[in-house]
Amino acid sequence: MKLLTVDKVSEARRKLKECCGALMPGNESIGLADAAGRILASDIFSKENIPPYRRSIMDGYAVRTADVGAAGDMIPSMLKVSGEVILGFDSTGISVDPGCCVYVPTGGYVPDGADAVVMVEYCEPFGNGMLAVSKSASPGENVVQVGEDIAEGDLLLPKGRKLRPQDIGVLAAAGVSSVPVVIPWKVTVISTGDELVSPDETPGPGRIRDINTYTIAARSASEGFSIVRMISVKDDEDAIERALETAKADSDVVVMSGGSSQGKKDMSADLIGKAADSGIITHGIAAKPGKPTITAYDSASNTMFIGLPGHPAAALMVYEQLLIHLWHDFTGCDDDITVKARVNTNIPAAPGRMTFQLVRLISGEDETEAVPVFARSGMISPMSSSDGYFVMSENTEGIRPGDRVTVYLWR
Amino acid sequence: MKLLTVDKVSEARRKLKECCGALMPGNESIGLADAAGRILASDIFSKENIPPYRRSIMDGYAVRTADVGAAGDMIPSMLKVSGEVILGFDSTGISVDPGCCVYVPTGGYVPDGADAVVMVEYCEPFGNGMLAVSKSASPGENVVQVGEDIAEGDLLLPKGRKLRPQDIGVLAAAGVSSVPVVIPWKVTVISTGDELVSPDETPGPGRIRDINTYTIAARSASEGFSIVRMISVKDDEDAIERALETAKADSDVVVMSGGSSQGKKDMSADLIGKAADSGIITHGIAAKPGKPTITAYDSASNTMFIGLPGHPAAALMVYEQLLIHLWHDFTGCDDDITVKARVNTNIPAAPGRMTFQLVRLISGEDETEAVPVFARSGMISPMSSSDGYFVMSENTEGIRPGDRVTVYLWR
Repeated sequence: MKLLTVDKVSEARRKLKECCGALMPGNESIGLADAAGRILASDIFSKENIPPYRRSIMDGYAVRTADVGAAGDMIPSMLKVSGEVILGFDSTGISVDPGCCVYVPTGGYVPDGADAVVMVEYCEPFGNGMLAVSKSASPGENVVQVGEDIAEGDLLLPKGRKLRPQDIGVLAAAGVSSVPVVIPWKVTVISTGDELVSPDETPGPGRIRDINTYTIAARSASEGFSIVRMISVKDDEDAIERALETAKADSDVVVMSGGSSQGKKDMSADLIGKAADSGIITHGIAAKPGKPTITAYDSASNTMFIGLPGHPAAALMVYEQLLIHLWHDFTGCDDDITVKARVNTNIPAAPGRMTFQLVRLISGEDETEAVPVFARSGMISPMSSSDGYFVMSENTEGIRPGDRVTVYLWR
Repeated sequence: MKLLTVDKVSEARRKLKECCGALMPGNESIGLADAAGRILASDIFSKENIPPYRRSIMDGYAVRTADVGAAGDMIPSMLKVSGEVILGFDSTGISVDPGCCVYVPTGGYVPDGADAVVMVEYCEPFGNGMLAVSKSASPGENVVQVGEDIAEGDLLLPKGRKLRPQDIGVLAAAGVSSVPVVIPWKVTVISTGDELVSPDETPGPGRIRDINTYTIAARSASEGFSIVRMISVKDDEDAIERALETAKADSDVVVMSGGSSQGKKDMSADLIGKAADSGIITHGIAAKPGKPTITAYDSASNTMFIGLPGHPAAALMVYEQLLIHLWHDFTGCDDDITVKARVNTNIPAAPGRMTFQLVRLISGEDETEAVPVFARSGMISPMSSSDGYFVMSENTEGIRPGDRVTVYLWR
């Protein structure tokens, strides 16, 4: 049995990033209607002022405030209605002269000369084209100034933003009809093991259903990666070698999860080492769960390999901590959602290892409480019954009642 | 100008649900590989025990604990190696007799007779098929019992769960290869207005780019709805009527956002009222932002209509509070992510109206702080620069420094 020289998680991340720099994702341009959920590849600045003209936020009359300074319920100001702004039509020729006012609908152009809009509720037509205004106005009232929403040159959205509906709205408002977004990694997911059967089969004695192919593929897809293929391969060196070679040809990332027994782990490491011309980067990480982890890089095909632990919970956690972490690092898209929560029990850390503790969250009066979900090795249900996890670093002894932790929510 | 009899938000929700009960989504069966992100239409129970046999969590030797009760570094127990469990092969015939042990790899079957597994690290082959075991074991050590992960009859996943990668894993483990999921609503998004131009055009005087079509379609898609079409229509009664009639024929939900001026709001209400045989349900809600909102139902085509405010931020918020809320109610999928946060300023509520206050979140030492983002009417950038919002109910006067609020994060 080989003794593993394990890397700390931070060390494994650093080496992986250094070796796989060429996997920094490329960019493509995409139209706004298809851009939601994609990650911006660069900062987007506004080329325009929004609004491009002074805009009324009410149905009302554009006035000169000096003309309505004394207006009130008892003694209204009388103004001449000299025009009307109609949405969708050019109103730039209209202006408001002293003693005059112009009707402006919500969203409409506030004509030159006017410096406020008085709501229709305070205005009464008085016949002969005159209007009684029963309320004074302060300069700028009910008027959005040019560029007040977005000014020319403003940063609209930062590189790394995963575009949400309202981000699409901001881009639409500023006339950005296509944006540069990162091209997702292409991922092959391989599970190996003579004991694996597909989920729709009933496993005979000694058999077990393939879980990792499904969870890892689903997690990849939820991150936006494209799945080239997901396959299950027997413990046959030639078959695994062929699968790795095929995957190198058309994938950026090859994720392999083998068995958890030592013999199988050795075989996985050997085969990944053979497929990767730059060899193994990390063999074993100081993480709980997640120790039996392999990373490697093939420079000829520009492919990253990750050999995951066989246990489903460990496999998903390592995938999160290494591969998704690197993707966030490369793209600048850190869309982890974290919640501060209080822990009310003792939770020991694994000495010298980064420990990932599953928790459920309970909403308390003033604070959120994190309740540990303990999982024995190889169990899958705790992943599904937990809301997320927190991290205890290598130097921590553990958590004491009353400590507050940062919980990463499952996505 | 019509005076609106506005509904409280809770009242608008109740009436909408009551009138649109026939829009309760149907179910379809979907394979596991495509199920991530879909919403379960019913509780899923396990038909099996996981693991189906006693499983070792280590590479080691299955033993009878009575045989190794006195084992230690100095005086190991000597056991006869009577067999080996190989992953993927039927080992159910193997058993461990007194004085004997059987090699079991991680994940392997623990044979009858044995009641614990001792890690290989504590076992030394001694020649002649004998093994020196230098550590005692307690019953059940390193053994996962039958059904310990998931027991037959256990609730695997509840109705309404939006399936995450680890949920897919649990289903795979339990042999559930397809699941009933809800069929997403089919949505048509219509923006109306002579002043609207598409995002790739430069708006001339009095024109403005269409924002709502894009934000509402993106929000619909992020909720999983299918977008039948997204169109922009001029302020032409016939054109809008035709658009509504077409949409009725193939959509479950028709979302229309018109202008924000009173004249346009009246026209929207009239046309929606004409298209919906059950008439207008709600005309105006006591919400800030979001007052000019219309809901209606057409029973002949089983179509819901929502007329949204013209202002983009108000439109998105109303869509969230009425339509997405009803979808969560119908499906049981409440996947809102909320964070408790402390507010350090005074924030007034709008009297008699449910107020939605945009905030940015700042991570403090022990607590998260919510900083208000104030938006003037019609502005779009505050939606994008905020992390979410909190709600002040109709009866609240507002928030005082030190108050804690529940922040709904944007999705």
